[in-house]
Amino acid sequence: SRELFVLTYGALVAQLCKDYEKDEDVNTWLDRMGYGIGVRLVDDFLARSAVKKCRSYSETADMIAQVAFKMYLGVTPSVSCNSAAGNEYSLILDKNPLVEFVEELPADRASLCYCNLLCGVIRGALEMVHLAAEVTFLQDRLKGDAVTEIGITFLRKAEDRKHKRN
Amino acid sequence: SRELFVLTYGALVAQLCKDYEKDEDVNTWLDRMGYGIGVRLVDDFLARSAVKKCRSYSETADMIAQVAFKMYLGVTPSVSCNSAAGNEYSLILDKNPLVEFVEELPADRASLCYCNLLCGVIRGALEMVHLAAEVTFLQDRLKGDAVTEIGITFLRKAEDRKHKRN
Repeated sequence: SRELFVLTYGALVAQLCKDYEKDEDVNTWLDRMGYGIGVRLVDDFLARSAVKKCRSYSETADMIAQVAFKMYLGVTPSVSCNSAAGNEYSLILDKNPLVEFVEELPADRASLCYCNLLCGVIRGALEMVHLAAEVTFLQDRLKGDAVTEIGITFLRKAEDRKHKRN
Repeated sequence: SRELFVLTYGALVAQLCKDYEKDEDVNTWLDRMGYGIGVRLVDDFLARSAVKKCRSYSETADMIAQVAFKMYLGVTPSVSCNSAAGNEYSLILDKNPLVEFVEELPADRASLCYCNLLCGVIRGALEMVHLAAEVTFLQDRLKGDAVTEIGITFLRKAEDRKHKRN
């Protein structure tokens, strides 16, 4: 049912563009909606994937790319670590199924992050497993970049959280 | 990816409810959006299903239920013919995956046809294969009915169209 989803998503973005003049506002709403979706989707993900608990940010990033993206979008982004501290990761998509029917952004919507819902979904889902993160688009093929890149910055160290619990 | 789709659809309906006070307006917009989606989705459907041309309204209704619903929503409604003229059909859903996360409609949204997008999708897709139809919800479990029933009324006879073409 991916095509139906992709087209329905397009209708949602179009509606938000009708509602909000500023691209930043559309981006914010997509992120917020995505957050609400991620918060609910994570149960489905955990139940269906039957994955074990991740022991590091690196494992978490791989899990998002290899299991979650594969499950919900049918693609597997490659993962790279962007910081010596080991808390910044990129998911790099050669192909983004969510923009299958989008040729390019309209000239007056140059700052739109068309797929920003995904950032919110990841953020919401991570929060439900007690991981705070910032998730944003770093590159976007819709804006002429060579690839689409989603950046995930984990905000607290696993060790900190462990201390807090003990 | 059905869960992601279902939740994204919920976000779309919620956004329209925010935008339009009257349920009728939300229903109209969902139908219009669905129409636009159906018009585009039909190519994907014909390519992926590789179905032969339908020779009757009855075959067409069966095709929507058994192939299209199965393909895009993972369910197969039962089909019944509602008119001696053979141009009115019902798709009857025991289970509607699109409302998986919806408990019930809010009290102030009693006239909302939550899944009205589907009616538009069917209408748009049929129009692209030169079949004019009215598509509406006749029953809805979200409104307390025993089943969810989508009514399809074909507006012109196949014979008429054949004459027109010859």
